[in-house]
Amino acid sequence: MTDAPTLDIVERLISRAPVVVERRVRWGECDPAQIVYTPRFADYLAAAYAWFGREVLQGVSPSLAELGLLAPAKALTLEFLRPLKPDDLFRMTVFVERIGTRSFTLRIEGTSPAGEPRFRGTISPIVVDAAAYAGVPIPPAHRAALTAYRDRQPDGTARGGAPAA
Amino acid sequence: MTDAPTLDIVERLISRAPVVVERRVRWGECDPAQIVYTPRFADYLAAAYAWFGREVLQGVSPSLAELGLLAPAKALTLEFLRPLKPDDLFRMTVFVERIGTRSFTLRIEGTSPAGEPRFRGTISPIVVDAAAYAGVPIPPAHRAALTAYRDRQPDGTARGGAPAA
Amino acid sequence: MTDAPTLDIVERLISRAPVVVERRVRWGECDPAQIVYTPRFADYLAAAYAWFGREVLQGVSPSLAELGLLAPAKALTLEFLRPLKPDDLFRMTVFVERIGTRSFTLRIEGTSPAGEPRFRGTISPIVVDAAAYAGVPIPPAHRAALTAYRDRQPDGTARGGAPAA
Amino acid sequence: MTDAPTLDIVERLISRAPVVVERRVRWGECDPAQIVYTPRFADYLAAAYAWFGREVLQGVSPSLAELGLLAPAKALTLEFLRPLKPDDLFRMTVFVERIGTRSFTLRIEGTSPAGEPRFRGTISPIVVDAAAYAGVPIPPAHRAALTAYRDRQPDGTARGGAPAA
Repeated sequence: MTDAPTLDIVERLISRAPVVVERRVRWGECDPAQIVYTPRFADYLAAAYAWFGREVLQGVSPSLAELGLLAPAKALTLEFLRPLKPDDLFRMTVFVERIGTRSFTLRIEGTSPAGEPRFRGTISPIVVDAAAYAGVPIPPAHRAALTAYRDRQPDGTARGGAPAA
Repeated sequence: MTDAPTLDIVERLISRAPVVVERRVRWGECDPAQIVYTPRFADYLAAAYAWFGREVLQGVSPSLAELGLLAPAKALTLEFLRPLKPDDLFRMTVFVERIGTRSFTLRIEGTSPAGEPRFRGTISPIVVDAAAYAGVPIPPAHRAALTAYRDRQPDGTARGGAPAA
Repeated sequence: MTDAPTLDIVERLISRAPVVVERRVRWGECDPAQIVYTPRFADYLAAAYAWFGREVLQGVSPSLAELGLLAPAKALTLEFLRPLKPDDLFRMTVFVERIGTRSFTLRIEGTSPAGEPRFRGTISPIVVDAAAYAGVPIPPAHRAALTAYRDRQPDGTARGGAPAA
Repeated sequence: MTDAPTLDIVERLISRAPVVVERRVRWGECDPAQIVYTPRFADYLAAAYAWFGREVLQGVSPSLAELGLLAPAKALTLEFLRPLKPDDLFRMTVFVERIGTRSFTLRIEGTSPAGEPRFRGTISPIVVDAAAYAGVPIPPAHRAALTAYRDRQPDGTARGGAPAA
């Protein structure tokens, strides 16, 4: 972000702990049924994961790249609660739901700006060796960052309650 | 499809019972990690569902549209087994996994042309009234089409076994 | 945009006269050559046009929709000056280049935040009757809005000089 | 393409000299106006260029990659003649319009299967050194392949006449 006024947005970060992203539905993300085309929600999840990565994981040293590691997705789920229409604003709040040995799961709660549920999803990255493309343990510093984030995230949502955005 | 020779393909239907789609990975579907960008697999699932709709559901009369109904997705899942690279050919085989009262679940098995697993996913459409956008029972003729398809699909896969593509 | 702090952005409006949009390149917009995939620049142009529409045309009354009119693109051009990479920030400044009888042309200058050229493009909407899909004159109030915008835009760029973002 | 019957298609190659691609409009390529979303035509052009590259340029030895060269787009144009709707079939015929020192221009004519114009566009790749990202002359063998293709392509279209698909 540069030093300029923010007059209006399509996508911005509005909270770091937890990571909350605000986004506006683009016309071109909607299909002839006048609502967001189903696969575009996977793009939304990827955008939320990118923000989480930027805010929580990329500052960790040494980085995954420096360790010769990648973190591709192993799985993804989506549940559609209410359709989104062109120009709708929505928010995505990112929760650490599970920290395993080699993989972890983020849960993303999509809501209206007022907090009403719109969709939810999960994305599960797995840490792999970039050369062998085989799973390896999450490096300790990254595990610590994930754990610290989870320990700070809103309580109710971590237990599966309503989104706290 | 028009009356012309097929010299090569990006996407084609190669079986109707079960529905099997063959597709080539586009360069632009891949990201800087040189593999298919995660959200594009949701586009692949949507393409497989579109073929299933065209082959199995659109021929049913009266159609969902004529009945004032829509069938948006209620949920979607994806599991990534091996990465796909630019120009890779893969196949998607569509199985009816569940037929509920108002919704059903399709399972899509993504494999190499030789049948090796690449990814799998599910998509669960729900039948809704177009005006109220509230769930309604699957119309009898559509239920019959789904049941007939399920009864004909390869056995092992229907029980969760290896993909039969 | 809701009442929340802007901590970082993917896309935001930073000026209304002229319309200037700041955007960050997404990972998934880049291809295996590690740069933005060519067709994604057309998505960028469409985003800039959407902002222009929102800021300049949508406030006009009666609206195109109320008049039974649409404004689809008749033509689009793109010139690529320097590649963009994942996470790069860039700006798009929108200029009214031509106001014809039924169509007009917007020029979009894509630059780095410091003003160095990255790409430029044009998009030429044509006003059509929604029913007949045939070109009709730009309504007077919309023509006035386009003219007022053009009269206020930075001088040099309107004559084809360097981007003034 | 594997050894399987082609029952129906989304995208296939139906002619090599000239390169002609047949494609079906996807639901998700269309927007709430019920027609193909403008930027998706840039994806169509890229698809046609990919087929041209595969059929005409990739067989040349040594390849651009082996020579340490890339061929990114330098420019792109699109002209929209009639809208396309979900499930519409269309064809793209690729013509070599210009062979310069370092760059060349392909013209793509988009038509209905019966040959009625739908859109047309150009894409102009430039050969660059992969390391310096600076323009270099088109290698002789690639120039020969482009010239041979142009010499064989249908006459009228090369002079700017009606599409010959």
